[in-house]
Amino acid sequence: MSILIRNGHVIYGEGLKPVRADVLIEGNRIVKVARGINEEADTVIDATGRVVSPGFVNLHTHSPMGLFRGLADDLPLMEWLEKHIWPREAKLTREHTKVGAYLGALEMIKAGTVAFLDMYFNMDAVAEVTLESGLRGYLGYGMIDLGDPERMEKEIKEALRTMDFIDGLGSDRVNFVFGPHAPYTCSIALLREVRKLANEHGKMITIHVSETMAETGQITERYGKSPVVLLDDIGFLGRDVIIAHGVWLDSRDIQILARNGVTVAHNPGSNMKLASGVMPVQKLLNAGVNVGLGTDGAASNNNLDMLEEMKLAALLHKVHNLDPTVADAKTVFKMATVNGAKALRLNAGVIKEDYLADLAIINFNRPHLRPLNNMVSHLVYSANGNDVETTIVDGKILMLDGEVLTLSEEKIIDMAEKTIGGLG
Amino acid sequence: MSILIRNGHVIYGEGLKPVRADVLIEGNRIVKVARGINEEADTVIDATGRVVSPGFVNLHTHSPMGLFRGLADDLPLMEWLEKHIWPREAKLTREHTKVGAYLGALEMIKAGTVAFLDMYFNMDAVAEVTLESGLRGYLGYGMIDLGDPERMEKEIKEALRTMDFIDGLGSDRVNFVFGPHAPYTCSIALLREVRKLANEHGKMITIHVSETMAETGQITERYGKSPVVLLDDIGFLGRDVIIAHGVWLDSRDIQILARNGVTVAHNPGSNMKLASGVMPVQKLLNAGVNVGLGTDGAASNNNLDMLEEMKLAALLHKVHNLDPTVADAKTVFKMATVNGAKALRLNAGVIKEDYLADLAIINFNRPHLRPLNNMVSHLVYSANGNDVETTIVDGKILMLDGEVLTLSEEKIIDMAEKTIGGLG
Repeated sequence: MSILIRNGHVIYGEGLKPVRADVLIEGNRIVKVARGINEEADTVIDATGRVVSPGFVNLHTHSPMGLFRGLADDLPLMEWLEKHIWPREAKLTREHTKVGAYLGALEMIKAGTVAFLDMYFNMDAVAEVTLESGLRGYLGYGMIDLGDPERMEKEIKEALRTMDFIDGLGSDRVNFVFGPHAPYTCSIALLREVRKLANEHGKMITIHVSETMAETGQITERYGKSPVVLLDDIGFLGRDVIIAHGVWLDSRDIQILARNGVTVAHNPGSNMKLASGVMPVQKLLNAGVNVGLGTDGAASNNNLDMLEEMKLAALLHKVHNLDPTVADAKTVFKMATVNGAKALRLNAGVIKEDYLADLAIINFNRPHLRPLNNMVSHLVYSANGNDVETTIVDGKILMLDGEVLTLSEEKIIDMAEKTIGGLG
Repeated sequence: MSILIRNGHVIYGEGLKPVRADVLIEGNRIVKVARGINEEADTVIDATGRVVSPGFVNLHTHSPMGLFRGLADDLPLMEWLEKHIWPREAKLTREHTKVGAYLGALEMIKAGTVAFLDMYFNMDAVAEVTLESGLRGYLGYGMIDLGDPERMEKEIKEALRTMDFIDGLGSDRVNFVFGPHAPYTCSIALLREVRKLANEHGKMITIHVSETMAETGQITERYGKSPVVLLDDIGFLGRDVIIAHGVWLDSRDIQILARNGVTVAHNPGSNMKLASGVMPVQKLLNAGVNVGLGTDGAASNNNLDMLEEMKLAALLHKVHNLDPTVADAKTVFKMATVNGAKALRLNAGVIKEDYLADLAIINFNRPHLRPLNNMVSHLVYSANGNDVETTIVDGKILMLDGEVLTLSEEKIIDMAEKTIGGLG
């Protein structure tokens, strides 16, 4: 299977240099980027007036939560969770979750996302959807034991069941990760066990850390140290750990994350909407920490649009620091692409020979993306998910000219409406 | 001329209540909103799966600046202006400005904007474009005298020439406003003269006020008072004044604005990108000040998308105040619609009988806008300009199902590329 993308503006290489070029894909790799490629290909895509961009890596989300989009906004976190989200989640069956996962996958494909790191429950259902959708999924069952040993045992069991299920699918694209929810919802025993199991099975770990001031204070009160110091002290951290949020980090935390090679998934939209706070992104980058970008779930964003998320990241840090040079377009673009890929150990996020063919073709024949003064700037500051026309993952076309090929848009939208109706 | 919009979800009345209804437009007014309207109409639009929303009022922009989109980002304000914007603006002819205005008008129509308050130069050219586009424009020639009496005379002359030109067009949709640039670039003499002329000719005034800390400090140093106190002391303020930005306002300033019935045009995207600061929106609203929403120019945003701007407003104030209840969806939606209309003295911004037929039809058959849990929330938190399919202004269809009827999209994009090429 080969694809030739002709006449586009390619955001090329690590330097993100826009060049007029064709892109040849063979199997699941980019094999050639050059002008006037003459090779034959099974599919030829005309990208005139389009930008060929690395696809986006959503490094933190809860993909089935699109079902709850807009159900409750503008509320304090605990009221939102206790009155609106948890009562509905308590009623969610495997089938409900699967519908939510379909909606999430559809939304991601439409907006040029190629890979995502997910945490939720009924993750076997999410894995089935991921396989069918063509996306790359890194799927964690969200474990919460609240210090209860019996519950811990159940959570470990469910995680391992999910791991076996996902491994059994035998797909490179669908991967299990361990997903202990957070230091304030998980016991030290659970966290230690997860670390051991991750080593044993060669799996990555994702966990919420230091999202809110309240949570950080709670941990400090309970353990006499910050969440990051706590995790470091029990030997939990490592290159295979991706922490979500990392809003309330002090200098010592940042040094620890850097020393351990931990990746931080930044979620500006969610942190803003839930009023969690502003992540110290410049300090993290200065310390050499790998920072990726995520949308968080659609209940707290309220979409899974990584192009919009890039703008939020760039703008938030400028105003927060009263410094317009912070979080420049290229830095943010890399967070949304190559940094995320690196965290997931993917040779992707860059358009260049030998990289995985995970990319998005974006229609720039639109007034808000003209003149073509600076394409990376336009992607970060002016484009949105609806500008994406074609999404390619692992050398397969998931969406072509706006039409999703792997999933039925109409059917999924219809199922989503019916599902939420039943959860009222 | 009549239009019947059938089967849509209508964001109805001042309460923004979504109802399934048809909307009948006759002439330039909404005459009926009800289920199953049977009247004949010249044009029938099927809005199944669509949301019929008040169109958006962009209360502060520099519409021709789309030409400079992305030319320079992530820079300190003065470097951006001195090295990138001003050298190019110095070369801008009337024809260049007109091309920029075409691009801006096209972008606004495509994203459901129905009216805009503009400040730039060559505003006669912008007026011609506004007339042709079908939009409602409130057009100010940006006056700057820097305390030079000779320059002041020239600026007044150009403003009056622009006023005569625009009044000569004889269109209700195309309106002149006075646009003294700012207290730090205009002499007191110029500001007094503008106030006098505005009274004489019954025109509104728009002016940048307290956008940056530096500017506010400069005025305080020069005059021993804040920009707002200064303007109040010379009798400049009134219900016909719309100040742009209002970022650095203290409690006394806010009381003065409230007492004078001044409207503030909030520009969160620009204030974030240029790192100007965060407007005290909640204090302004608590004091009863009318607050509208604007995108500012596309050189500092970098688009004219009011749907995106609503999200930026809602998110910015939540995180800045560490309070998720601030700037809720309905409050922000009103800023972008009825508050802007009110500032411009338009009986618009609301879908209800007898209001002006200025509206947008937005396609909700998209995964990021489903399930239909809360349509106003989806418009604020998840939609973007590309979701708009149909834009109606003054009872005339400017865009239908994504196709702009009043302007040639292809031609304008082509002209914009050629124009910026010549300004390198």
